[in-house]
Amino acid sequence: MSNSARPAWLDDVAWNEQGLIPAIAQDAATGEVLMFAWMNRDALQLTVARGEAVYWSRSRGKLWHKGEESGHTQKVIDLRLDCDRDTLLIKIEQTGGIACHTGRRSCFYRQLNGGQWREVDAVLKDPQTIYRG
Amino acid sequence: MSNSARPAWLDDVAWNEQGLIPAIAQDAATGEVLMFAWMNRDALQLTVARGEAVYWSRSRGKLWHKGEESGHTQKVIDLRLDCDRDTLLIKIEQTGGIACHTGRRSCFYRQLNGGQWREVDAVLKDPQTIYRG
Repeated sequence: MSNSARPAWLDDVAWNEQGLIPAIAQDAATGEVLMFAWMNRDALQLTVARGEAVYWSRSRGKLWHKGEESGHTQKVIDLRLDCDRDTLLIKIEQTGGIACHTGRRSCFYRQLNGGQWREVDAVLKDPQTIYRG
Repeated sequence: MSNSARPAWLDDVAWNEQGLIPAIAQDAATGEVLMFAWMNRDALQLTVARGEAVYWSRSRGKLWHKGEESGHTQKVIDLRLDCDRDTLLIKIEQTGGIACHTGRRSCFYRQLNGGQWREVDAVLKDPQTIYRG
């Protein structure tokens, strides 16, 4: 296997026992945390090669090029690894301004308030019009 | 077990197979992502009761009141749960302005740049003076 196929920076990552690393997607301009997902080695390598976020879908057991169905791709602006080398922060430009499959800007729209999780952020687009398939 | 000891909002969380949930700590004022850790049920309940972040240390196998040794506690400003109910975003005020055990503001100080992870953020305080033993 050539060095270019397995660059050293991929080996610097502390992959977990499933070969995954958590990835936090943050809006590079506003600082808003938009979503949380996982990457495996191939996903991270593809993310860097394409300049767009590619995750590993644990539920579907396959690579997931974010926006492949919705068009809501994420352009990589900055990629960070934490002190323990086991978490990624990916600063992005969110195409369409919507990261969540519910049609909201961010997935973190439930706020603990008065002992309940309340949905405090607006749906910007009907999910049925986002996913055409 | 009384309802007050096990409030319903704790049951709304989709705990993983280890009974944990990932938690992203973000500076409530600046939006900077400071660290990433895990909580179990007790940690989340204590976090809300105290108004300060309490995590579950997977490496030490015990509750970890952030700042218990360093003094760098995290005051909870806002607590969010995501669309899948399996990730927390905790917006905080970071006491001392330092979240990372390396003495940096944020744990995400390594940037992928030219095929290498480079340490791009400054150490604000010598870790040896943070942890007094």
